[in-house]
Amino acid sequence: MSLITDRENLDFLLFDVLFADDLFLTDAFGHFDREAVIQILDTAQAIAEDHFLPFAAEADAEEPWVSDGKAVVPESTANALHAYADAGFFALPFPEAQGGLQAPWVLYMAVVGLFNAANLPVTNYAMLTIAAANLLLVHGSPDLQARFLAPMLEGRWFGTMCLSEPQAGSSLADIRMVAEQGDDGTYRLRGSKMWISGGEQEISENIVHMVLAKIPGGPKGAKGISLFLVPKYRLDDAGHPADRNDITLVGLNHKMGQRGTTNCLLSFGDVGECEGYLIGEPHRGLEYMFHMMNEARIGVGNGAVASAHAAYLYAVDYARMRLQGRPLDRRNPAEPQVPLIEHTDIKRLLMDQKAAAEGGMSLNLYCATLVDRLVTVKDPKVRKSTLGRLELLTPVAKSWPSEHCLEANKWAIQVLGGYGYSSDYPVERLYRDNRLNHIHEGAFGIQALDLLRRKIGGDQGVAVTALVQDMCATIEDAMEITELASGAGRLHNSVIQLDGAIETLLRCRDVNRQLANATLFLDGFGTIVVGWLWLRQAMVATKALNEDGRSDSERMFLAAKQRTGCYFLKYKLAEASAQIALCCDLDTTVLDAPSDMF
Amino acid sequence: MSLITDRENLDFLLFDVLFADDLFLTDAFGHFDREAVIQILDTAQAIAEDHFLPFAAEADAEEPWVSDGKAVVPESTANALHAYADAGFFALPFPEAQGGLQAPWVLYMAVVGLFNAANLPVTNYAMLTIAAANLLLVHGSPDLQARFLAPMLEGRWFGTMCLSEPQAGSSLADIRMVAEQGDDGTYRLRGSKMWISGGEQEISENIVHMVLAKIPGGPKGAKGISLFLVPKYRLDDAGHPADRNDITLVGLNHKMGQRGTTNCLLSFGDVGECEGYLIGEPHRGLEYMFHMMNEARIGVGNGAVASAHAAYLYAVDYARMRLQGRPLDRRNPAEPQVPLIEHTDIKRLLMDQKAAAEGGMSLNLYCATLVDRLVTVKDPKVRKSTLGRLELLTPVAKSWPSEHCLEANKWAIQVLGGYGYSSDYPVERLYRDNRLNHIHEGAFGIQALDLLRRKIGGDQGVAVTALVQDMCATIEDAMEITELASGAGRLHNSVIQLDGAIETLLRCRDVNRQLANATLFLDGFGTIVVGWLWLRQAMVATKALNEDGRSDSERMFLAAKQRTGCYFLKYKLAEASAQIALCCDLDTTVLDAPSDMF
Repeated sequence: MSLITDRENLDFLLFDVLFADDLFLTDAFGHFDREAVIQILDTAQAIAEDHFLPFAAEADAEEPWVSDGKAVVPESTANALHAYADAGFFALPFPEAQGGLQAPWVLYMAVVGLFNAANLPVTNYAMLTIAAANLLLVHGSPDLQARFLAPMLEGRWFGTMCLSEPQAGSSLADIRMVAEQGDDGTYRLRGSKMWISGGEQEISENIVHMVLAKIPGGPKGAKGISLFLVPKYRLDDAGHPADRNDITLVGLNHKMGQRGTTNCLLSFGDVGECEGYLIGEPHRGLEYMFHMMNEARIGVGNGAVASAHAAYLYAVDYARMRLQGRPLDRRNPAEPQVPLIEHTDIKRLLMDQKAAAEGGMSLNLYCATLVDRLVTVKDPKVRKSTLGRLELLTPVAKSWPSEHCLEANKWAIQVLGGYGYSSDYPVERLYRDNRLNHIHEGAFGIQALDLLRRKIGGDQGVAVTALVQDMCATIEDAMEITELASGAGRLHNSVIQLDGAIETLLRCRDVNRQLANATLFLDGFGTIVVGWLWLRQAMVATKALNEDGRSDSERMFLAAKQRTGCYFLKYKLAEASAQIALCCDLDTTVLDAPSDMF
Repeated sequence: MSLITDRENLDFLLFDVLFADDLFLTDAFGHFDREAVIQILDTAQAIAEDHFLPFAAEADAEEPWVSDGKAVVPESTANALHAYADAGFFALPFPEAQGGLQAPWVLYMAVVGLFNAANLPVTNYAMLTIAAANLLLVHGSPDLQARFLAPMLEGRWFGTMCLSEPQAGSSLADIRMVAEQGDDGTYRLRGSKMWISGGEQEISENIVHMVLAKIPGGPKGAKGISLFLVPKYRLDDAGHPADRNDITLVGLNHKMGQRGTTNCLLSFGDVGECEGYLIGEPHRGLEYMFHMMNEARIGVGNGAVASAHAAYLYAVDYARMRLQGRPLDRRNPAEPQVPLIEHTDIKRLLMDQKAAAEGGMSLNLYCATLVDRLVTVKDPKVRKSTLGRLELLTPVAKSWPSEHCLEANKWAIQVLGGYGYSSDYPVERLYRDNRLNHIHEGAFGIQALDLLRRKIGGDQGVAVTALVQDMCATIEDAMEITELASGAGRLHNSVIQLDGAIETLLRCRDVNRQLANATLFLDGFGTIVVGWLWLRQAMVATKALNEDGRSDSERMFLAAKQRTGCYFLKYKLAEASAQIALCCDLDTTVLDAPSDMF
């Protein structure tokens, strides 16, 4: 069995639950069909298993180091990324006009999910490059695009996102990096950037930094931030990397996980010669960044899901193989031991992981289909509501897996016991890798404010009401299905409760009180949304189970979907319900806590 | 401020909540008084801060390595343990007759808590030695005691516990290590032991292994296990370590955390010359081990609590110092940034950590007072009920902190953001260290079976009913206190619900169904017990707040206790309630899951 993917599950989600085939009927993605998608996934799986997975432990153990001002990574990292480039995957989600494959975003997420499951820290370099290229494609001038885009899509030049500074993480309004325009129209940047993933490496021929900075004289705070393209090597007239730009690697951060990705403190303009090019208009940098936020945050969720899924697959494999103990009702020591997987508590641990990983994956891919619908849908009203849905679910797609898939990793370790805690097995590494996802691209609490204030408060509940209606429609259908009626009933109770909580929260005029339990709300809301997607999975599975002509293994797969859905709707919704109830109270126990009490 | 302890909190728990002074009125502990206890805690804190804390990061980074068949650890580890020994702490909990200080167990736990908070992996060596010495003291022959006990109490020889084998972790019935009696009455051991903490090191002059093995011809399974003392160096006639016993260090395990403790695969008797001495009677080894289980498992809980408490203290310190962002209702970027701690979501993260760490500490110390009461109480009926309470709460004292204090560590990282994920800050290390506690000394699921089957089912609910009555009595008192009435009401609802769940579970004759959700039950039960202890803390605090003559800082401390108690009773009980409700259902979603579905 594969230790990075369950392709039957992936096909089920893409084609049976999310109807990816519909995309192939559209203008934008008509050049794809199911066969092509499967072929691309086959190729991705093969490269991920051959070039990424075998070196994941090495990338973790041999942390990047600094030598002569350069960041050095194991050769296997470069080899993996070259294989990724050779297969054309850097160009996957880009328009054909730019030399891309113009694949739907959902396919890109499915592909990246395979690589993330195999070796997330190495895959990061590719994802960051694609994100930077996307920014350049949407907001960069034709001239900048002409010079920088093609080598990025070929995977010869990598990209980075330079947002945080040592003193400004969550509070981007407080960045200090300065960009002053020179006589030639280009800018000179000066300042430090912190936590820059892929900020230095010797793998790619050039690095294209996307840098937030302030042009002197602009507005204060977030409204005075501009976006710049700053290359590691300036280009010569032929467009080749030439002399080195004035960017210094000050140091590498040592991290708990994701150690295969260099993480840098960079200094720009130490000698006043750091050349950068404005992207779009001055002072609109944060707005541009936020344009890409949905995709970036869904990408973080993808990593969290993949880490959990890979650990789940490993734990299942281990639990089948490892003999330990006897059933509770047959404990005769003269009898042979049974595989771990025969113990109910081990099944519970696996069920919980499956529920989180496959539930998170359904959320991730569902959100990716919303990104695609923004491309394919013409009707402006539908477009608007699709965008509303995507924006509403983005903080969920980022945070829910960061929390629940991390917990799944915790339980994968538990299945392996002492072996799970040992670095000879991958599950502890996946747990460490996953812990970052709650932090980067907007921390948990930031996502919570985004959801409640901007996404729900911002349109006075329009998008969330539409979602609630969709959930109710699914529930109504599911009520007709005997096996799912009680799970659907539970989801219905949760949705009613959620609806009431939203009304209460929107009615609250005291912003501090409204947002005091925003994080609890986000988490509970996320569980309800994933519960809805699990109900959809269970419905598809149950209908298929009632069809003739399914093989035994297909029936087992479908029955597993049905049972896991029921598990989620019973066990996980119960937690969410407790959280949402607390939000309805507008409780101020924490809000009113004096900071001196700690 | 100290980064390992809040002494005001420790004093509050020991003296105001748990009435440790009462112990000083007993024969066994009459040689102690409050002043002596405070002095011992002062000494412990000083040594922990001077010799343990500064080298915690080093012990993590410089993992023990094998050189010439020996396990080498950083010199700072040896220095720390020598300081611990020089202060007499190895002898702390032992009877005066054996040269010990005959301290109450609760004082020992308080002391160990300080060292655990400073540097748990190094403290492990001392705790293991004390556990092994305790086993020898209670079950060993006078001759063995005469030869081995004194150097262990002096901290010159260390001890280990050798239970697991590569093929037998949770299922000790399946160990294969063999011990055959020789003509001289001693035994020859042969086999492998896995995951042996402190199994090899060059710090102590000798190592005293406590080894489970089977004497050929004995009963099968757990009933055929005997306990042996097996020294690293055999003793000469003068009792000094002489020639090396036939024990080989096969390898060191590399772990996610607790890396400062060597963790060994040991091979005994490769050349048939591994000499060991039977402890007590043949075939009673597991019984002897289980005698020490309460203390050992409470000790694991102590480590989990200490890891969370240390991380909490660090996170508070960081949150006060680090400026980031602005209040939700005053976001003018021209205004200066505020400390992190002013943000409600950061307060929530800190509150959650405080609730878990101080709640877990109250549970830990409360259980330790039960150990002490077994010594001081004469009335056999009271003794029996005290033992029942201790046995009932042992799986809780082990598991609840392993789960909830680990989560607290997760949130400590979150407070620090990217810095929290960096190895330059201690919080990620504490998180990694803590992850082991759910695994060793009986995994989460094993504790759950122990609670529900042995501790609740075993006496048909007698001990748990007594606890429920005590909780109800506390609740009745608390109902009279305006500030706590609603929290007490919540706890009352949970206790009623718990009582119903227990009745349902005890009535269930199908063992598989009864135990299918044992882990959820353990976790929810634990939260209710800690909720009860939080109510007790809040009651003491509220009464004290109503007294005159308290300083402002005392009032802040007490108000914090009150508020955190209310937080726990509102937020944490809600989770427990959802868990206990699921147990009441006797749900079989997981139990009935075919293992092939994963």
